[in-house]
Amino acid sequence: MEILRTCADLRAWSHEQRGLGKVVGLVPTMGALHAGHASLIRAARRGAGAVAVSLFVNPTQFGPSEDFARYPRSFEADCVLAAAAGADVVFAPSVEEMYPAGAVTFVEVPGLSDRLDGKSRPGHFRGVASVVTKLLIATEADRAYFGQKDAAQVALLRRLVADLRFATEIVVCPIVREPDGLALSSRNVYLSLSERQQALAMSRAVRKAEAIFAAGDHSAESLISAARQVLLAEPDLRIDYVELVDWGTLLPIEAAHSGALFAVAAWVGPTRLIDNTVFAYSPDEEITAAPWIAEEATPEPQCALHLPSAVHFDRAGSNSP
Amino acid sequence: MEILRTCADLRAWSHEQRGLGKVVGLVPTMGALHAGHASLIRAARRGAGAVAVSLFVNPTQFGPSEDFARYPRSFEADCVLAAAAGADVVFAPSVEEMYPAGAVTFVEVPGLSDRLDGKSRPGHFRGVASVVTKLLIATEADRAYFGQKDAAQVALLRRLVADLRFATEIVVCPIVREPDGLALSSRNVYLSLSERQQALAMSRAVRKAEAIFAAGDHSAESLISAARQVLLAEPDLRIDYVELVDWGTLLPIEAAHSGALFAVAAWVGPTRLIDNTVFAYSPDEEITAAPWIAEEATPEPQCALHLPSAVHFDRAGSNSP
Repeated sequence: MEILRTCADLRAWSHEQRGLGKVVGLVPTMGALHAGHASLIRAARRGAGAVAVSLFVNPTQFGPSEDFARYPRSFEADCVLAAAAGADVVFAPSVEEMYPAGAVTFVEVPGLSDRLDGKSRPGHFRGVASVVTKLLIATEADRAYFGQKDAAQVALLRRLVADLRFATEIVVCPIVREPDGLALSSRNVYLSLSERQQALAMSRAVRKAEAIFAAGDHSAESLISAARQVLLAEPDLRIDYVELVDWGTLLPIEAAHSGALFAVAAWVGPTRLIDNTVFAYSPDEEITAAPWIAEEATPEPQCALHLPSAVHFDRAGSNSP
Repeated sequence: MEILRTCADLRAWSHEQRGLGKVVGLVPTMGALHAGHASLIRAARRGAGAVAVSLFVNPTQFGPSEDFARYPRSFEADCVLAAAAGADVVFAPSVEEMYPAGAVTFVEVPGLSDRLDGKSRPGHFRGVASVVTKLLIATEADRAYFGQKDAAQVALLRRLVADLRFATEIVVCPIVREPDGLALSSRNVYLSLSERQQALAMSRAVRKAEAIFAAGDHSAESLISAARQVLLAEPDLRIDYVELVDWGTLLPIEAAHSGALFAVAAWVGPTRLIDNTVFAYSPDEEITAAPWIAEEATPEPQCALHLPSAVHFDRAGSNSP
């Protein structure tokens, strides 16, 4: 597996692959790869003939009081995981490569950038939009893979790709969870034992909303208040938001429907975590509602990576233990 | 010459040309083509194996009180001129094609977008940056051709291309003038006979500054006050700006140097016009200072278009009659 450092090299690689008739897949990450990222890379391996994984801790998507400096970095382990999951190249640019001297240009997706995580993290989505635009320009990727875990990011990037007339298809992969339900996140390493325990309320809150929806109560009020109750039981957990929204616009809706997004964010101690589910009347219907969702195929013959055996793939975030 | 209407068709054409080993050149225009545009297309014909000319009156770069609705549109004549000057395809999308339903995403180049024309036309450069980004994404052009007449736009787009990591080279072509010195502009058709006469003060002001520079006085104060005097003599001309700036940053400078931009903008009656010059210690030195400037070759064997015979090409804007 090759490691590329410049946009020019990434572009040259992409042109070469396309010249060979291959579909080019891109998995943008900030490194600190875990089994969630591995599932994205495997999805890219299935859906594209040539797979690039970018590892770039993008400074512009961190606020001034956020964790840019201490965000986990594990380049060598990341390369091992990326290769094992099926990456052909890793793109690991310097900050100066992505933001050359004097750089000022940015990409903004107004409205969407101010909702959910964008509301509590001002400037975050401007940074995301700008860096993903640069990655898509450099790769001209046919498909780019993102996790449903970052559901607001997915909505924003789908809008951006349509608006800027990229030919790239945004493919969304299911949330990957620990055996006890905790959604995988590079930030989980920040959690103390007690915080780790309290963080489980996030997935419990999401499952609670799913159960209420499944029982036929689709009202935002019911879903949100039940989820909030679960979260409020934890002493060190501070709710950021609990919202039922249209997944396209991220605007609040009064009643859930198939394809609606139910999302929660909270600080557990000093660590901000997120979780969500996309409601489905039935598994079949969900696929119709969100055709861009990539199913995790089983078995994974091409994956040589030994994942923690208990990690499983949860298409709708609903079948956690 | 083919006429393309969608970004997908433009991209397919571009991929095909690149597959044939050709360098792809793009000439973005708002239509209403004149000999200035023709010089851009001919430069693209010389510098690229495949030439696309876009004709798109971009609504987002017009202010609410500006001339979007009445901006001259002459599609059939534009196609004739583009073909004669050497275009392989014309890209003429609808507004909906460039701004799909619900589009909100834009590209901003802060700082540069607020200087010179950006200062008097708030939002103008956001519109320019956004639409050119879309055109570059769709074409993945190796070279894009712009006129020095829009010198602030050139500075902004060079910054944008570097920041967003496009591989596109921005090529700048000299200002094309009428025999009496008036810089060609699609907006010249708005001028009454009297306004047309008064508009000549623009190029006279620029030439005055060039003469002072050539005589050895490089101070911003001398250059600007002399040019202002020329402009103030016209009763229906209202100065927008007269500025000496660094062409890279568009920030004012105290003394001109080779490569510095001297730019004027004024309303002549209701019509806003611009003109400029880039100073040069010597013609050779200018080429060193601004290597991205495309020289107009003479003769033009490949150009079958009959241009007004008196139109000439003025590399530094200094040898007008």
